[in-house]
Amino acid sequence: MPQPLVTREPATVAAALDRRRAEIVEQLKALLRIPSISALSQHKPDIQRCAEWLAAHMRQIGLDRVEVLPTGGNPVVYGQWLNAPGAPTALVYGHYDVQPVDPLDEWRQPPFEPVVQDGQIYARGAVDDKGQLFMHLEVVEEYLRDGGALPMNLKLLLEGEEEMGSEHLDAFIQAHTDLLAADVAVISDTSMFARGVPSITYGLRGLSYLQVDVRGPSVDLHSGSFGGAVANPCLVLCELLASLKDRDDRVVVPGFYDRVRPLSEQERQAWAALPFDEERFKAPLGLAGKRLRGERGYSVLERLWARPTLEINGLWGGFQGEGAKTIIPAEAHAKISCRLVPDQEPDEIARLVQEHIRRVAPPTVEVTVSAIHTGHGALTPLDHPAVQAGVRALERGFPGQPATFIRSGGSIPVVHTFQRVLGVPTVLLGVGLDEENAHAPNEHFDLENFAGGMRSLAYLWDELARQPA
Amino acid sequence: MPQPLVTREPATVAAALDRRRAEIVEQLKALLRIPSISALSQHKPDIQRCAEWLAAHMRQIGLDRVEVLPTGGNPVVYGQWLNAPGAPTALVYGHYDVQPVDPLDEWRQPPFEPVVQDGQIYARGAVDDKGQLFMHLEVVEEYLRDGGALPMNLKLLLEGEEEMGSEHLDAFIQAHTDLLAADVAVISDTSMFARGVPSITYGLRGLSYLQVDVRGPSVDLHSGSFGGAVANPCLVLCELLASLKDRDDRVVVPGFYDRVRPLSEQERQAWAALPFDEERFKAPLGLAGKRLRGERGYSVLERLWARPTLEINGLWGGFQGEGAKTIIPAEAHAKISCRLVPDQEPDEIARLVQEHIRRVAPPTVEVTVSAIHTGHGALTPLDHPAVQAGVRALERGFPGQPATFIRSGGSIPVVHTFQRVLGVPTVLLGVGLDEENAHAPNEHFDLENFAGGMRSLAYLWDELARQPA
Repeated sequence: MPQPLVTREPATVAAALDRRRAEIVEQLKALLRIPSISALSQHKPDIQRCAEWLAAHMRQIGLDRVEVLPTGGNPVVYGQWLNAPGAPTALVYGHYDVQPVDPLDEWRQPPFEPVVQDGQIYARGAVDDKGQLFMHLEVVEEYLRDGGALPMNLKLLLEGEEEMGSEHLDAFIQAHTDLLAADVAVISDTSMFARGVPSITYGLRGLSYLQVDVRGPSVDLHSGSFGGAVANPCLVLCELLASLKDRDDRVVVPGFYDRVRPLSEQERQAWAALPFDEERFKAPLGLAGKRLRGERGYSVLERLWARPTLEINGLWGGFQGEGAKTIIPAEAHAKISCRLVPDQEPDEIARLVQEHIRRVAPPTVEVTVSAIHTGHGALTPLDHPAVQAGVRALERGFPGQPATFIRSGGSIPVVHTFQRVLGVPTVLLGVGLDEENAHAPNEHFDLENFAGGMRSLAYLWDELARQPA
Repeated sequence: MPQPLVTREPATVAAALDRRRAEIVEQLKALLRIPSISALSQHKPDIQRCAEWLAAHMRQIGLDRVEVLPTGGNPVVYGQWLNAPGAPTALVYGHYDVQPVDPLDEWRQPPFEPVVQDGQIYARGAVDDKGQLFMHLEVVEEYLRDGGALPMNLKLLLEGEEEMGSEHLDAFIQAHTDLLAADVAVISDTSMFARGVPSITYGLRGLSYLQVDVRGPSVDLHSGSFGGAVANPCLVLCELLASLKDRDDRVVVPGFYDRVRPLSEQERQAWAALPFDEERFKAPLGLAGKRLRGERGYSVLERLWARPTLEINGLWGGFQGEGAKTIIPAEAHAKISCRLVPDQEPDEIARLVQEHIRRVAPPTVEVTVSAIHTGHGALTPLDHPAVQAGVRALERGFPGQPATFIRSGGSIPVVHTFQRVLGVPTVLLGVGLDEENAHAPNEHFDLENFAGGMRSLAYLWDELARQPA
């Protein structure tokens, strides 16, 4: 007969995690060394290696049924621990793929050679999301150590395509609804409002990412021989992109705002009360002395959390080298993306932007607009018991730091899928900071928050276990 | 006592050049194999090698005092033949440097491995300007063969910085006014109006080339965490560039048109009578079915030859890779250049554009505008005897093809310097075609025009020798 399992006390687990911190950071470094960049096809083998590394680690810490499961694209890693009969089940989601690293020359050390400096761990993926998913693994390890037990059932789902739009994740979830069935989902891939303000995120923006290609002459032309006679694709691209927003920085695409859920007066007031300081917001971004910019009539937090926007993510055409080259470029290109809020439909927005650009494209060039990927925004009701459990867990994990509710400008499309396909709400308990350069050179993760995040998750399973299943 | 020199008959020289054509093309290939790209500093050794190659060749064909002379930048190659006492002296200018070759993947064969196909020679520099300067060397070689003599005195000046703005040429000319003293200058670096229409170019546009740099946040930002709150440098750049022209495609920079010499009614009528066909102009550019674009109120030829313009030569910022990267780029950049007409002052225009962009730059980003190089436009009086001699030479070199007078949209700033410093007018006798991809992939040069150009230059020295010195 198997020995009865003994659920460990969350405070004991939290204390053990604090003691083991140096060792845990070393293990995290091994994960950070794998350059699992999903957007670049030459990193396919690294994606596979990263998935295998995680599966091996998950088996070692005591998870059951650990598998690297195929999808239409990069594999997901699955593991579970279901030995708490009668207790609720949480589905933990994280992603092991990372953003590209260019511009490489702006990194102070190679992006896949993690270093700890001034209490921060530096590496691509440090905070987004390898560092944060690793918190979950270490909390599980500590609970299960020496035949210990978790207070509730867990399922872990680690994805390899989040940074390229989670293209195959929806189909995977739809095909595995039994395997993934749960009472609540938990994700650690968000930021705190600020250092010292641990936060539960209850709203996320969605995304529609597109590429615009402008093609003029079949080859680059001599700008002397042809300048003034033919349309310049770079200029046409600039005109098209500049025309997408009006003087109030509102997106002019017809229908763009039609489904935007208005901000409640209650939220406006709550956000106005948050300790937001514009100068302290600007300084770490290198924008001290510069003015911020955004949609007229909304505060910075409202613009980030509750309003959709359209950004140029990249732009290129013609000569980019040293010195001068006198050409009219044959082509010009841009990556653009819209951040969306409930209840905007990402595919609809992609279509509206495509139609608008095609409509305003001049007859002097060929303009194409391709949708690259889309994702839904999400809102979890503030009064949901799981969300309240999350706040209590944060306050126990970060003693002396009152937790708060925030939204995020970022996107985690799977939150919408969990609600729609599995019928579960998501608790977004993330401990990154917006200034930690996710998606930029010198990405890093504060190790105090890493430790607080682990303690909070140890308490979260205790808090959620007390909820009705 | 030296043997008396015997001036050869131009028709004999022309016929000999026709006979030797295959051999001459092989020699040209050797010159085209040297990647003398002046804009890229890693090609400095190739620049030097190209200058030495030319000097060796010039000594071999019988020129005197051949030297590779230093400047503040790339060397010039000089040679002379001054054994026609009492006859006038012509100063021949050409440039041995070439444009960069990117985008390299659009070349059908490597740019520095010349091939002949369908009567064209393909290579970077084939027409601009190695092929055209080589016509001069071969005509000299043929005149001087076996102790022969030219009908007049020649000085040759070959430059290595034309494609980067001839920065050091003015100072060199000012320091060598005695060495370079002449009665007329001749340059073969222009195009014919069309195949079968050999042309003397009497007007050139000038150039002001600038770089615009927009800097926002100190690093790329996550477009979810920050999109909608901070200014996007790519968007600001697009807005700045799109704002430089109005709806009539006129440049809005204050003062831009102040010094533009109006087009005479006579020229408008002469150009309207040229065999210009918009569909035939568009087809080789890959613009069939597209509309042309340019300043309202002027014909295509007027826009190209007599009106200034502003073009974007290159544009870059943020993510340019495969897939999606959700950032607000830290920086965005553009290369822009104005083509100028008499009597616009290039330095003044550069300053006006800089001042205008600085004035309209928003307080949300840092905008800098740097002048990269400038050059003057030029007009040679149509009734100048040397220009008339050029037309007669073309009609003898291209029998059955009536020659005409045109302007060019391109820039050869040295024409202005020759007039200002040496007091000599320039005959622009070039035999390229606008569709030969100067500055673009798959640059080529029609070998029939190459041959006609050599014959015409053989006749030109005969025609000019008859002018009063």
